[in-house]
Amino acid sequence: MARARGGRAARRAERAESDADDGTSVVQQSRWGQLRYTDPPTEPLDREGVERVHGAAMEILEDIGIDFLHEDARRLLAEAGCSVDADGPTVRMGRDFVMEMVARAPSSFTITPRNPDHAITIGDGMAAFGTVASAPNVSDLAGGRRTGNHADYQTLLKLAQSFNCIHFVSGYPVEPVDLHASTRHLDALADALTLSDKVIQPYSLGSERIEDGMEMVRLAGGLTHEEFEASPRTFTNINSSSPLKHDWPMLDGAMRMARRGQAVLVAPFTLAGAMAPITLAGAIAQQTAEALAAVALLQYIRPGAPCVYGAFTSNVDMQSGAPAFGTPEYMRAMQMSGQMSRRYGLPLRSSNANASNAPDAQATWESSNSLFGALSGHAAMVFHAAGWLEGGLTASLEKFVIDCELLQHWTHYHQPVPTGPEDLALDAIREVGPNGHFLGSEHTQARFRNAFYSPFLSDWRNYEAWEQAGAETTEQRAHRVWQDVVAGYMPPPMDAGASEALYAFVERRRSEGGAPTDF
Amino acid sequence: MARARGGRAARRAERAESDADDGTSVVQQSRWGQLRYTDPPTEPLDREGVERVHGAAMEILEDIGIDFLHEDARRLLAEAGCSVDADGPTVRMGRDFVMEMVARAPSSFTITPRNPDHAITIGDGMAAFGTVASAPNVSDLAGGRRTGNHADYQTLLKLAQSFNCIHFVSGYPVEPVDLHASTRHLDALADALTLSDKVIQPYSLGSERIEDGMEMVRLAGGLTHEEFEASPRTFTNINSSSPLKHDWPMLDGAMRMARRGQAVLVAPFTLAGAMAPITLAGAIAQQTAEALAAVALLQYIRPGAPCVYGAFTSNVDMQSGAPAFGTPEYMRAMQMSGQMSRRYGLPLRSSNANASNAPDAQATWESSNSLFGALSGHAAMVFHAAGWLEGGLTASLEKFVIDCELLQHWTHYHQPVPTGPEDLALDAIREVGPNGHFLGSEHTQARFRNAFYSPFLSDWRNYEAWEQAGAETTEQRAHRVWQDVVAGYMPPPMDAGASEALYAFVERRRSEGGAPTDF
Repeated sequence: MARARGGRAARRAERAESDADDGTSVVQQSRWGQLRYTDPPTEPLDREGVERVHGAAMEILEDIGIDFLHEDARRLLAEAGCSVDADGPTVRMGRDFVMEMVARAPSSFTITPRNPDHAITIGDGMAAFGTVASAPNVSDLAGGRRTGNHADYQTLLKLAQSFNCIHFVSGYPVEPVDLHASTRHLDALADALTLSDKVIQPYSLGSERIEDGMEMVRLAGGLTHEEFEASPRTFTNINSSSPLKHDWPMLDGAMRMARRGQAVLVAPFTLAGAMAPITLAGAIAQQTAEALAAVALLQYIRPGAPCVYGAFTSNVDMQSGAPAFGTPEYMRAMQMSGQMSRRYGLPLRSSNANASNAPDAQATWESSNSLFGALSGHAAMVFHAAGWLEGGLTASLEKFVIDCELLQHWTHYHQPVPTGPEDLALDAIREVGPNGHFLGSEHTQARFRNAFYSPFLSDWRNYEAWEQAGAETTEQRAHRVWQDVVAGYMPPPMDAGASEALYAFVERRRSEGGAPTDF
Repeated sequence: MARARGGRAARRAERAESDADDGTSVVQQSRWGQLRYTDPPTEPLDREGVERVHGAAMEILEDIGIDFLHEDARRLLAEAGCSVDADGPTVRMGRDFVMEMVARAPSSFTITPRNPDHAITIGDGMAAFGTVASAPNVSDLAGGRRTGNHADYQTLLKLAQSFNCIHFVSGYPVEPVDLHASTRHLDALADALTLSDKVIQPYSLGSERIEDGMEMVRLAGGLTHEEFEASPRTFTNINSSSPLKHDWPMLDGAMRMARRGQAVLVAPFTLAGAMAPITLAGAIAQQTAEALAAVALLQYIRPGAPCVYGAFTSNVDMQSGAPAFGTPEYMRAMQMSGQMSRRYGLPLRSSNANASNAPDAQATWESSNSLFGALSGHAAMVFHAAGWLEGGLTASLEKFVIDCELLQHWTHYHQPVPTGPEDLALDAIREVGPNGHFLGSEHTQARFRNAFYSPFLSDWRNYEAWEQAGAETTEQRAHRVWQDVVAGYMPPPMDAGASEALYAFVERRRSEGGAPTDF
């Protein structure tokens, strides 16, 4: 599928056979596959520190309580023996109950989309990367910043499908606000299930949307109800309304998903200094309490329901109150979250976040730091792994491409370094001697195709060649790359019957008026 | 010293008292101090792997040999019992001899410049950061790329002196080619010793330059010869001419420095696939052999001479042969080098390298990766920590500022995370409850000044405010910052007698014709 794109692509064409993509894209990218951790996680807390944070989380759950703004949830928790306020939404859970429920959750599981080759493992020492989610705006170098819309939403889905380092679509990469709110979920999810065959995510925004989402995933996969409920086919993500509160629409969606064996990520929005204590230990304790409260509820409803411990703790700029990401505090918070998630045997969800207004140096160091935090914390899922800008207010098409390059770097980094006799290369060193060069040696020639990671976005030409070719910045190269990828996009094959059933469902639900918009 | 620089600086003025600089700069930067590692090093090799690389290095030294292009060096090594070819430069060293010599070197030491407050520890779980060194070109956003010159050299010295995260000046941050080659070292080092009071580095480019350099450091510090030789006051860096060769000018400088108790860094230039095997294990084995060969010589000359194991192993782009930096291979090479340096009880030298032609996203991810490699390898000295661009062919003034921001990030990251009762913040969580906000809580108010790292270069304003203020990219902000810092630069105080002696020496040596230029 590789189309000629000038000198660089041409020089690399030879690589295509040995180390290239699977034909779904025009860039010479890495093959489909998940990152598998080789380094141990980085652990800022000692064992005692982990237990202190755990103890504080338990005290919050037992003594301070969490508000569940959902009557059914409170009724179930009361039935389970929790202390539920008679006149208010607060629920207090004993630590024994919480730990018994949490222990029911699997430490890893698989989510299988309509193309089983794109099934992903959540946990088990692996990472899965998702697109930016829920950005209200979209931007690119040529078109500037604009309100999210259907066309750009489709463009982002095409990029998600084409880049092998992207393993799942998180919600809507950008909000298609030109689709009517009552039927947006139908059209948007139909697009996601058609333009992509990877794992997708319906939002927990009220009963209708999540039920429609599950049904659409089932129909697109050509599954019976029994097959759908037998193992995870999709997932949803809920955020607590920090501090200490779970809202109705998200709880409702989470409970419906768990009942049908689908995965639920619980990610408290605990910005330290704003919605959580300014101290990292306090913020992570609160994050843990909020996450475990929902996990306990879901495990009571369906023992063994796949759940993920979500971490979004970062800090705010104390001068302006604006959220900050990719900070030293964010890196430590992700690593601490990893420690807590392992304490409970739950996979970790993290994010590739930044607060920059442009895909420039700041965006890149904040993203590099965020990814380092997520990966050194052994995140099982990295949300917003590609395309997030402005603290999530914009999905940037160039940033999407830049992030894919970072994801490939880290995936390649997590490979063992062999030290066998052939790797130690004593014969080659002897043969080349003090006056030779290794480029021509047999040892080099036998390995040069696959010896090193080959980036698709780096420009390593010398200055003069780079200048003569137009002195393109990384952002400008990324602009060309996403346009090329979209131009070369091919929709993944889909069973005609499944497609028909999916669109028939969409039309039926559209005629019924879709979902209420007053959630 | 803080001058008003608009809203951001004004908002931050209040911070100045508690967490700001020591008055040498106009940016609200961190205080002077070295990074102290809190995370353990990342170790890609197991114990057996380290021993295999060590064994290969020993076999290179014993069996293949290293060329020493310096008669005195060969004579000394023959005297020490090494096998020296009668008709050639090759020296073979027994592993027992090498290990006995290497064991003489200290695992850490201090270098004290003319201002003892700017003394730096090399090793002992700390990192020291240096400027870009030896770039033939310089660039900035307004003036573009130009040949290195005296004025820009001085500008870079002022930045090095002003930024507290810069601990030493590496050689000439940019080559002042408009200074005559025979006296360049006199003028350039006089500048370095006057415009800065931090540790500086004379080049090992023949006998005269290194002797002049040591004498100038001695005079600028107002030291007797005995005081100068009693402990390290400066250092030099030598590169082997890989594969397997140490050249005359560098060996000569290194031996002269070691004889007077000054520090020597030995950094083989082992690009995997070009000057070293394409396999990382082989490249690191060769790097180790080349480094230890010189360290053994220096320890034979002066037992206990401060030496540093230098690592510069990276890979080349196998398509073009161009050097690549900040790659997955570079990160692993730095970590493996750290393992080898600890195997020998030597401090590690690494670099903050990238191969980008502009201070953009690529430059930033490559630098972030390089810094991660260096720091996760527990480098004691990070060369080229600020300002390096284009694989070292250009010193970029904006990149200098961007890198200082990265260095501050990582320094702050390496701090323990406390988990005491006040950090767990249960009282604050209880007080704020499910409907409150932590910004106004007493727990937050008591901590907000110093709770979080505060970057000087990040722009965290919302998009609209950022756009209205001119939509500056990080590069544009960095341009303003270096101009402000240079405008606000104040030369460090210098003893009048020492200054007089320094310049009298320069004039005497100038009248003598300086140093030969045919090295």
